[in-house]
Formats: sequence, structure tokens, C-alpha cells
Amino acid sequence: MVVGGGQLARMMQQPAIALGVTLRAIVESAQGSTAQVVPDSPVAAPADLAVRPDLVEGAAALTFEHEHVPAAALAAVAEAGVPVRPGPHALRYAQNKLDMRERLTELGIPCPAWAAVSSVSELDGFGAANGWPVVLKTPTGGYDGKGVRFIERAADAQDWFEAAGGAALLAESKVAFRRELAALVARRPSGEVRAWPVVQTLQRDGVCAEVIAPAPGLDPGLAEHARDVAVRIAEGLDVTGVLAVEMFEIDGALVVNELAMRPHNSGHWTIDGAVTSQFEQHLRAVLDLPLGSPEARQPVSVMVNLLGSELPDPADALPEALAVHPEAKVHLYGKEVRPGRKLGHVTVNGDDAERALAEARAVVALLRGEG
Amino acid sequence: MVVGGGQLARMMQQPAIALGVTLRAIVESAQGSTAQVVPDSPVAAPADLAVRPDLVEGAAALTFEHEHVPAAALAAVAEAGVPVRPGPHALRYAQNKLDMRERLTELGIPCPAWAAVSSVSELDGFGAANGWPVVLKTPTGGYDGKGVRFIERAADAQDWFEAAGGAALLAESKVAFRRELAALVARRPSGEVRAWPVVQTLQRDGVCAEVIAPAPGLDPGLAEHARDVAVRIAEGLDVTGVLAVEMFEIDGALVVNELAMRPHNSGHWTIDGAVTSQFEQHLRAVLDLPLGSPEARQPVSVMVNLLGSELPDPADALPEALAVHPEAKVHLYGKEVRPGRKLGHVTVNGDDAERALAEARAVVALLRGEG
Repeated sequence: MVVGGGQLARMMQQPAIALGVTLRAIVESAQGSTAQVVPDSPVAAPADLAVRPDLVEGAAALTFEHEHVPAAALAAVAEAGVPVRPGPHALRYAQNKLDMRERLTELGIPCPAWAAVSSVSELDGFGAANGWPVVLKTPTGGYDGKGVRFIERAADAQDWFEAAGGAALLAESKVAFRRELAALVARRPSGEVRAWPVVQTLQRDGVCAEVIAPAPGLDPGLAEHARDVAVRIAEGLDVTGVLAVEMFEIDGALVVNELAMRPHNSGHWTIDGAVTSQFEQHLRAVLDLPLGSPEARQPVSVMVNLLGSELPDPADALPEALAVHPEAKVHLYGKEVRPGRKLGHVTVNGDDAERALAEARAVVALLRGEG
Repeated sequence: MVVGGGQLARMMQQPAIALGVTLRAIVESAQGSTAQVVPDSPVAAPADLAVRPDLVEGAAALTFEHEHVPAAALAAVAEAGVPVRPGPHALRYAQNKLDMRERLTELGIPCPAWAAVSSVSELDGFGAANGWPVVLKTPTGGYDGKGVRFIERAADAQDWFEAAGGAALLAESKVAFRRELAALVARRPSGEVRAWPVVQTLQRDGVCAEVIAPAPGLDPGLAEHARDVAVRIAEGLDVTGVLAVEMFEIDGALVVNELAMRPHNSGHWTIDGAVTSQFEQHLRAVLDLPLGSPEARQPVSVMVNLLGSELPDPADALPEALAVHPEAKVHLYGKEVRPGRKLGHVTVNGDDAERALAEARAVVALLRGEG
């Protein structure tokens, strides 16, 4: 069973159908993206797992489409005998960015300069030592650019320190990166690990906008290094399921930006582009089933997110969108339109990244009502 | 919405999730293959469509996973303003094999010698003219080898003529075929037609056992002819949705064996092997959306059916079955085991048909408990 009612749990249902795995999803809304397609979708808050044993009864494993599950809930599920995957001991590093930085540094994983800062003066010290701007992050609760701020002068962060009430924030030096990469791996409790090709991601306003698989022109040695870093993190943190490692590429080197312990936007291309999708692999991994081949099925896959739409429903544009490129794979999440909201994505497989990108963007533009 | 609660409607749910199409399935059992994965699955008989307008309320179109829907039900749905696709005027040729033979012959489509026979003596006359054995078929209700009999002497069919109570049966000459082929096409109400590569099918006891896509060594001219025959039938019968045309190959020629107006076992390979699967294409076609590319994604795909199992549940063998070939795509239908029952299928994509076939058979053997 999976905690979460958004598009990730929705997309997990597709390989669950193929593998004959019965999914139960703990959802926020009976009309949401997941509940539309998963018959067994009880409406509950993640915290309810601590007090409602019926929610996990009969489950072979508990997994997540997001990391925001209270520790007490995870402990209660584990005590009820249902394996929690990834386990709480791994999940804390996806829940808390300070813990993550500390642990990655222990493991010798390349990170940007970082420090825990609890006051304007500590932040000022970090900036003086590492240069401005500084990237300031709330250790918990952030996603899609939320909880991240670029600070030019320490005093600008006064409000966040006040809101934190003395708790530490994470300061990181801003990396002058060439581009952003993501390395996705999946790992079983028994230890088997499989890595997909390393991809290039393009973020806009902190939100993933486009992905190119594999990352164009990436040095093979650096690609190997990126996969190796992701595998070392998966093993070092004892992750089960999919682990996405977002990285910055800088002059032939890499530093780790963020982690996610679940299927990730940078892996959506695998649904149509890899032998085994991240959603199928995640299910296999958390059920401790043998992992599938993560090989790409063609030279290039590109994925473009549908972020908001001018249309009341992007599905209204399907007659135009499906007509322009018969090879494009359109994914709609059944979500209500809001500005900038992730409503779907489009994948195009091919031989040429530029051409595939142009085609996927054209389809997305139509779904956005920009026809 | 779709009539049927078996594996075909179940597999339709996967592309429905991707396209943001909300499926409603009219199912026989709330625990069945489809109801396990489609939240909106009212339990009802196809005939109930004639008397329960709530079943079709709000539907954009009605389609089928089998042809056994009474004409009165189809008429009622059409009267309620819900498009029936394929329409009753097309579906009758999938429901009644005598009507089918008559219409195909009118259209100049190559068929085996055939006749409507209502008595032992008429059958004897057909056999005398066309040779023995004769293939005798009940015009309606047959599937997976049921309703088909090989007759060596007319008197052996006495029981069927008695059961038919004077109604005609279909007599066909037994074709000395080299092999069996299937040509699948999809057609929209607006007329757009797309054809997948022609496949070779292997039947055992009248049930599809294996499919190789494309049909190995098929003469390109004959492949073109097979696709052309399927397109002509789709257009001549005004089919909407997927049309499967089963054919016999004989010395560089083809004759049509059977038709199905829905996703078909010979097209399961398209889920993992084609740019657009038959299930996605069927949804697009019946919703009159532009069709996707039917191109194969690799040189060869093979599909092997899982027919029965020695195990209480074939899923019990997933740990072994998924381990042997990480590139194999396993599909389980969530159905209870019965001897010979279609419980799932395995597809392997590759460069070499023999090797892919060996791999898919090995995975199926494990799921059958023959490990």
C-alpha cells in the first residue's frame, strides 16, 4: 500500500495492474488523482496510520509517494508487522535536509559547502566564508522549490529564523553549475540495486520542467560516477524502493543537491522509455521482488511537464494534442487546473534530443491551451 | 465505458489512467479481474443496459471487451444518446459468423469455402463438394475454440443440428494452412485507420498460446495484403475501435478465419512492443481521438500466454519468474486459477524471435509452477 493520493500513486497503479499487485492508497480526497483509479483508496491523513490499524491490515508493505509521514505513524505500522519501505531509518534523510547533509558528508559523498545555521549572524558567517548568495533551506517540509530561498544578505533571512524559533536552518553555498542531472536507482531489501541512465533535468522556479534521457553529451566517466554516487547513497542510507539523487554538474565534477526516496519527476520518462519504469521498479523493490532491466529502449527520451493550463481541463485539447505527434505519449493526472500545477507530462522517444524536445513541447503547449 | 469484467477491460485501465480517461466497467463480479482495478465497476449483466439508464449516464461512449451484448441493450444505449462503438450494425458481424461470412464474401474478402447448413444431409453435401473434414461452427456465442468442431462424417454432427432446432450452422472447408496470422487495425468514427505489424499466432486447442510480432519471414507483399484486407473489413463493416482479423496463410495467399471487434489476444504484445498499445488505441478510437503510432519499438516481440497453473496463485512464483529474465514483461490478470484459463501473459522484446520465445516460455513455465 502507498501513502499519497497524487499523480505518483496514480502512476504506480499502472504497473500494479500488470503485476497483479492490489494497491491500497491512503488519499487526501476521494476525488483525487489516485482515488480516481485505485478502488481501495481510504481517505485518511498519514498520521492516522498511528491510530487506525485497519488502514494497513493485510498489506504486504507500506510505501510512499511523499516523505511527509510522521515518525509515530511509521513506527506504528512497523509494530503492526507491515514492512515500511523505505524504512524510517532511511526516510529521515529524505525528511530532514540537515540530517541528509550530515550523513552524506560522513559517507564521503560530494556536497556543496553547507552548515546548520540558527541565526542571522551564523548565516552571515557562512556567507562570508563561502560567498553570497547563500541557498537557505528549511530542513523539513519543502518540495518543488518551496522551503528554498536565495539569500543575498543575512538580514534578509530574519523572518525565517524567527519562524524557526531557534531551530537550525540549512545554509548551502550556491553552486555555479553547468547543468542539473539526476541519477535514479532502485534497491531491494535484499540488496539488489539497479540504476537507470543518468538524465539532465531543467528546473523552472524550482519545479522540474523538462528531462532529457540520457543527459546529452555527458562524459561516460562522469555518468558512471553519478550512478556510483546514487548507489552508494542507496546502500549507505539503506534505502529500499526508488531513490532519486538530484545533482549539479560543475566542470567535470558533481555535487549532490537533493534526495527523494520514491518515484520522482526526473524518472517519468521511464514509463515509456525504459524496459522497466520507475513505478514498476518501485513496486518490485518494496515488495522485495527481483528488479527489472533499467535499460533505455531507444537513443533518446524527453519528458516535458504540463504545468498549469489556460484550459478548464487540459483533456479538452486531446483532439489537437494527439493529432500533431502520433508517437508522443501523453499522461494526464486527472487533477483540477491551478496555475503552475503539475497536471500531466508528455514523453517523446526518438533518436534526436532537440527534435524530441520540440515535439514534446508542442504537445504540451496545446494541452496548456496555447494552440 | 466498457462492458466486461475480464482481463481486456482490466488492461484498458492502464492507458485510461495515462490519458486521464475515467473508465466505467460493467462487470460480472465485484471481485473480478477488472473490478480489482477500476473504481467505477457496477455489477450488472450486459442485458441490464436495456433497463438501467444509470449504467450509461454520463458516458462519452460505450464499448466492449466481448461481443455478447444483446441487440436490445445496444439499441437502448444508442437511444439514450451514448455512442455505441463499434456500432450494432458492425458488431453483428462479430456476433454472428454466418452474417460475417456472407458480408465478407460480398466485399470480396478471401474466405474458405463456406455454407449455411441446417441438416446432416446439407452438411454431407458440403463435405462431398469441399472435402472432409469440415469445420462446423455455431454462428453465435463461440470463443476460444468453443462452438467449433471438426467433422469427419456428417452423421457425427447430428447432436448439434438437433440442439440448433432447425437454425443454420456454419460449415467451412478445413484450410491446409502453413500458419496462422493476425492483422490488427484500429479505426475512428471519422475514418482514420492505423494498422499494427502483422503477427504470427500459435493456437493450442483453439486457444491463442503464442504470438510473434512481426510474423517471421512473412513476404512483405503478403504482409501488405493482410493489412489491406483488415483495413477493407474495418471500412466495409464500419468498425470503430480495434478490429482483429485472424487469417490462415496458404502458399502465398490468405483467407480470413475469424473477426474480433475489440482488443484481442494477438495484440497483447503491443502493450510493451508498440508505440501505441491496442488498449490505448481502442480508447482513442472509440472516443474519436486521433490515433497513435502503431509502429513496433524493436525488431521482435513475442507474447506467451499463461494458461492455467499448478500453483494456487501464479503470483507466488514472481520471485523466481522475475529473476530469470529482467527484461521480460509479466502481466497477471488477478484471476483465480482454473485449468487452461487465461491468467496472464509474458512479453519479451528483442532482436531474435527464437531467443525471445525461449525466454518468455521460461518465465511462463515458472508462473505455471513448472520451475
